[in-house]
Amino acid sequence: MGNTFGHLFRVTTFGESHGGGVGVIIDGCPPQLEIDVAEIQYELDRRRPGQSKITTPRKETDICEILSGVFEGQTLGTPMMILVRNKDARPQDYQEMASKYRPSHADATYDAKYGIRNWQGGGRSSARETIGRVAAGAIAKKILKQYSGVEIVGYVKRIKNLEAIVDLETVTIEQVESNIVRCPDTECADRMIELVEQIRDVGDSLGGVVECVARNVPKGLGSPVFDKLEADLAKGVMSLPASKGFEIGSGFAGTTLTGSEHNDEFYTDEQGEIRTVTNRSGGVQGGISNGENIVLRAAFKPTATIRKEQRTVSRVGEETLLAAKGRHDPCVLPRAVPMVEAMVAIVLCDHLLRHHGQCESLKYMALRARE
Amino acid sequence: MGNTFGHLFRVTTFGESHGGGVGVIIDGCPPQLEIDVAEIQYELDRRRPGQSKITTPRKETDICEILSGVFEGQTLGTPMMILVRNKDARPQDYQEMASKYRPSHADATYDAKYGIRNWQGGGRSSARETIGRVAAGAIAKKILKQYSGVEIVGYVKRIKNLEAIVDLETVTIEQVESNIVRCPDTECADRMIELVEQIRDVGDSLGGVVECVARNVPKGLGSPVFDKLEADLAKGVMSLPASKGFEIGSGFAGTTLTGSEHNDEFYTDEQGEIRTVTNRSGGVQGGISNGENIVLRAAFKPTATIRKEQRTVSRVGEETLLAAKGRHDPCVLPRAVPMVEAMVAIVLCDHLLRHHGQCESLKYMALRARE
Amino acid sequence: MGNTFGHLFRVTTFGESHGGGVGVIIDGCPPQLEIDVAEIQYELDRRRPGQSKITTPRKETDICEILSGVFEGQTLGTPMMILVRNKDARPQDYQEMASKYRPSHADATYDAKYGIRNWQGGGRSSARETIGRVAAGAIAKKILKQYSGVEIVGYVKRIKNLEAIVDLETVTIEQVESNIVRCPDTECADRMIELVEQIRDVGDSLGGVVECVARNVPKGLGSPVFDKLEADLAKGVMSLPASKGFEIGSGFAGTTLTGSEHNDEFYTDEQGEIRTVTNRSGGVQGGISNGENIVLRAAFKPTATIRKEQRTVSRVGEETLLAAKGRHDPCVLPRAVPMVEAMVAIVLCDHLLRHHGQCESLKYMALRARE
Amino acid sequence: MGNTFGHLFRVTTFGESHGGGVGVIIDGCPPQLEIDVAEIQYELDRRRPGQSKITTPRKETDICEILSGVFEGQTLGTPMMILVRNKDARPQDYQEMASKYRPSHADATYDAKYGIRNWQGGGRSSARETIGRVAAGAIAKKILKQYSGVEIVGYVKRIKNLEAIVDLETVTIEQVESNIVRCPDTECADRMIELVEQIRDVGDSLGGVVECVARNVPKGLGSPVFDKLEADLAKGVMSLPASKGFEIGSGFAGTTLTGSEHNDEFYTDEQGEIRTVTNRSGGVQGGISNGENIVLRAAFKPTATIRKEQRTVSRVGEETLLAAKGRHDPCVLPRAVPMVEAMVAIVLCDHLLRHHGQCESLKYMALRARE
Repeated sequence: MGNTFGHLFRVTTFGESHGGGVGVIIDGCPPQLEIDVAEIQYELDRRRPGQSKITTPRKETDICEILSGVFEGQTLGTPMMILVRNKDARPQDYQEMASKYRPSHADATYDAKYGIRNWQGGGRSSARETIGRVAAGAIAKKILKQYSGVEIVGYVKRIKNLEAIVDLETVTIEQVESNIVRCPDTECADRMIELVEQIRDVGDSLGGVVECVARNVPKGLGSPVFDKLEADLAKGVMSLPASKGFEIGSGFAGTTLTGSEHNDEFYTDEQGEIRTVTNRSGGVQGGISNGENIVLRAAFKPTATIRKEQRTVSRVGEETLLAAKGRHDPCVLPRAVPMVEAMVAIVLCDHLLRHHGQCESLKYMALRARE
Repeated sequence: MGNTFGHLFRVTTFGESHGGGVGVIIDGCPPQLEIDVAEIQYELDRRRPGQSKITTPRKETDICEILSGVFEGQTLGTPMMILVRNKDARPQDYQEMASKYRPSHADATYDAKYGIRNWQGGGRSSARETIGRVAAGAIAKKILKQYSGVEIVGYVKRIKNLEAIVDLETVTIEQVESNIVRCPDTECADRMIELVEQIRDVGDSLGGVVECVARNVPKGLGSPVFDKLEADLAKGVMSLPASKGFEIGSGFAGTTLTGSEHNDEFYTDEQGEIRTVTNRSGGVQGGISNGENIVLRAAFKPTATIRKEQRTVSRVGEETLLAAKGRHDPCVLPRAVPMVEAMVAIVLCDHLLRHHGQCESLKYMALRARE
Repeated sequence: MGNTFGHLFRVTTFGESHGGGVGVIIDGCPPQLEIDVAEIQYELDRRRPGQSKITTPRKETDICEILSGVFEGQTLGTPMMILVRNKDARPQDYQEMASKYRPSHADATYDAKYGIRNWQGGGRSSARETIGRVAAGAIAKKILKQYSGVEIVGYVKRIKNLEAIVDLETVTIEQVESNIVRCPDTECADRMIELVEQIRDVGDSLGGVVECVARNVPKGLGSPVFDKLEADLAKGVMSLPASKGFEIGSGFAGTTLTGSEHNDEFYTDEQGEIRTVTNRSGGVQGGISNGENIVLRAAFKPTATIRKEQRTVSRVGEETLLAAKGRHDPCVLPRAVPMVEAMVAIVLCDHLLRHHGQCESLKYMALRARE
Repeated sequence: MGNTFGHLFRVTTFGESHGGGVGVIIDGCPPQLEIDVAEIQYELDRRRPGQSKITTPRKETDICEILSGVFEGQTLGTPMMILVRNKDARPQDYQEMASKYRPSHADATYDAKYGIRNWQGGGRSSARETIGRVAAGAIAKKILKQYSGVEIVGYVKRIKNLEAIVDLETVTIEQVESNIVRCPDTECADRMIELVEQIRDVGDSLGGVVECVARNVPKGLGSPVFDKLEADLAKGVMSLPASKGFEIGSGFAGTTLTGSEHNDEFYTDEQGEIRTVTNRSGGVQGGISNGENIVLRAAFKPTATIRKEQRTVSRVGEETLLAAKGRHDPCVLPRAVPMVEAMVAIVLCDHLLRHHGQCESLKYMALRARE
């Protein structure tokens, strides 16, 4: 249960870190969209392990294969299945963890729920699961970009206490990709990289915050009640491994302002468009996009699996010690950037199609009838 | 679209603030559950306007009627429809807002999406919509309490910069209900009440943080990927009006720790139960409950509708000024407490039934076959 | 569970035959649709009991009330809740059936599933539940008619062995409504009415077949796999009380032809439109509408509740006899006509919106971008 | 859209007949179920092309691979992805059909909906899509068999006018599999085989009826309204390629009886179980299983693709002739048997888990609490 996300643009992922492979079915993709595998692979490469000295050294090229839904370079409107085989699995590294629970990892809860788990790696809780999301996100980004000019840019905003200064209006993917920690504030990026290397060398790990902005989002996406745009974004982001918090716009900090300080006053711009002077709303009011930048932040805890020895228990409850083996990220933040972007893209694309289905379809029919 | 929440315990709400009424259909409720309308009314009374001097003075008794799904005091297993009529509507207060958009309110985005809105009040974006959620939450709480001993306690943790000190292990609903601001730290509560009265008198508003703890949640609720327990809790809470942020366990603060500082080490307690020494995970690991307290926080922005004059535009884009009329909460926090509790209860109840459907059903059949 | 139907145009019904009332929430209705309560009431009147001498004499005016989702005569795009109160309930008629199971009725299976049932009438299995469907169907018909010119006409094709001759191309609602049995073949209708009166007088009941045609359905509605148009139509129709069979196009009879006899050859008509010479497909090929008339038939069994004495058992399994009291239709067919039409309309409307969401939205955006 | 089926036991299929492969994700499978690939392969072998002289000669071994969700021979409770690669594709056979529409096939409707199709074979409308269903059905059958003793047996009941005599109570899979046409009436089977060979030799095709019985289904599966058991069975079966009709129990024939003739009277059997004397209900009353045999029939039209020359049009509407190439079944019935069984199994398994989730979970918790 719970492996499908979205209503019209529906994403279902599968796969364990140490089984035959991982991937995704995307159902509901509009037809006749031009698809270049390289575009998907570009995003997977941003996510893959072993991409730099500050990520896990697991060697996976994560080359994807599209098995269905595309014909002669175009989407068919039928389900796209995208598969990545697992290559560099080393189950022997996990032998000890077959019987000992990693603190703050999913080992114990999987056993509690299912009475069984694939202990040869993280199983379904591994970040490898996000391959399917990132592949689907690449398709979603393409639709959003091509038809609405939407740009989604995520980046590392903070690691531990090192916080970057980033201009939401102008930050580009190129700036983000200019360094291995994916922080567009290059000076801060250098200090972040240094800190991650230090912590890695002592067998410990770090957490931080990813910020993401979506520009040029059309007005009207979202829905008033349970499927508010911010609620679906929160769900999407909080479903990523290691996430512990979500904010949109002013977030927690905004709660210290008064209403008169916090409200975004309206004005009419030169094109006659109704805009807001400030954007504490983060691009969403009443669950529906208002055309301003959508701005959100996600908190990621420090990686649970560390080499430092910790107290734990075995499957049968005996107290013991564990110094985890295996290859793990000392800090998930750089690789979390494409994951957050993917979830934001999937949510926006799903709501774009939903909005058209409910609110624009009759206008379109009326328009065509007049032709 | 988007007015239904949950998979097995499914909640669909309806209603505008100034139409015939508001309410909910609950589909999937287990049969033979004893229902006392007073239990639902108790929660609605915690939510209703006019309950104290620091809430909106709108006079709604919010008396609910159960129209279906209950027979001779027991649930039938069929949909429960619970209805509350709107009584004290004053559309005349909204006359000016028919043509002027309230800053940071949903007026403009509803118009952008639908091309129409019920301007006689907040329409579907009104907090009256949450009546249906709170009624459904009362049923969910009952199921959780009766069959698993789950206790859900929410309270105001912070208003502006006034932060309460609360013991998660021991805090009770009685303590929460002991004052009108719903803060169990009574000294802090007094200062909060004073602050809300001050801000109300100057026509402005306040935001803050609600914290909620769920105790005795069974291990194993939740799901590994998109429907992680924290993801569904985030969606539930972030779908409440005025919410801007969500945290579980250590949240944003936890990102400044290292993994060795943050991880919750395991031990075995006197009953032989596997437990964690600390609870930075907030009761959820890998998307699945671990039996510890589920702890979450939600940020609520200051109420958008204020009496202070603000810059805005009309429906046709003319710049103008607005000092909102109508009756509004100077601070939504006290009334947000039962709303947050309701969403937490609905999520947990849905996952309880889902967990049994997938993971416990075969055990139960095997058990019965042996009898 | 299972009280919601549709993906974008979502219908959720509630209510027992002898509780506070019955009704529906329609979620996903396009905004700015003009709604006249009389249009809904017209369909409810076709469905209501006591409408003629050959239906149940239960006296229900079934006056509906729209409690939400409509403002100044237009849909808001938010959930429409439509309520009908139960008026003429006579629980005393059901006293005997509280303890004795009616053969071929849902009494026993409800007890087996839920361990409880509302024995004061048919409970949730009563045909009163279809009030919500018929109200939602009225909205769906309006959307289909207004934006695509779709016409849906159902009628009684057969009662017992009396089979009508009907021209699918020309049959009108006016012809259907011209007599109380809803059979446009007026000569056959007279014989049907006579037969129903005879069977009623001996305390027995009759079954038959409803046929329904949808004309002017746009090409392209439906989906290739599980949500084939015929599959969703089958589900919709087979979810009506007393239905035992479903056919589309040539149906069971078509299985006796060879492929060369059965295939619908293509030609191009004078408007340059690709058409089929015959319509054994019933307007659907590969799960997707082809622009020809959609033609389907539904089998309805004879009403289970009859005055004739039958063998049965009590709740505790004691063998006994039962001659049912209460007011029941001697033949459900005349009242099943608006129910079948409603389900066909809901399915088509849902697929119309879905098709636009997935397949037309990008075209529309491209079109608007060019303007 | 529309490639997912089921609520708790959720099946999502993917793949075109001439792409990289076809398969399925099964989400919601209970954990710790023992899985032997051979059990899945057994069902796939019953479905595969080239299995006998009366099926299509396309040579596909349809060897399946389980890529996720299983560990050391047991299900993990996570999504199972099962993949079958396409091997013997011959796109050159379809060259002519790239531009000419096959009558009564999905070519034209796919173009109408999507504006594109994979013309190298049947694309998504190919019967190869059902590989994923049959694989999922194998898992569903195992759950049903192991935990509830459910037996599902389908067979060819009729081809053209040749109708078999079959005893629903005793018919076995072994009898069905004893001949290549899958008709347990061996004398009739011989005549059917002869007829199929004759029609194949003249380049034409045949239709017929599959009947399916499910024995030992527990009481209480299903749901009162839209998700009636017969409605979900109808949808499942009518979503299979070439299906044109569905019946449960007495079906269309039952409509010629009176209520007193049709009703299934109750009695109490020697074990004290409430049973029905007859089974015109087909094992379902009011949408819920009553413990009697579930009996249904599906009509399959004659295969659309035939070698006989037929009138048709090209993609641009020019009238032309087509004698289809490629390898096709002269009669889909023998291979439709495992498909129908699979859909029946998936529906029953989904409703088994749903029933437990809603109606049995609290009993189980109460039972465990007492221990």
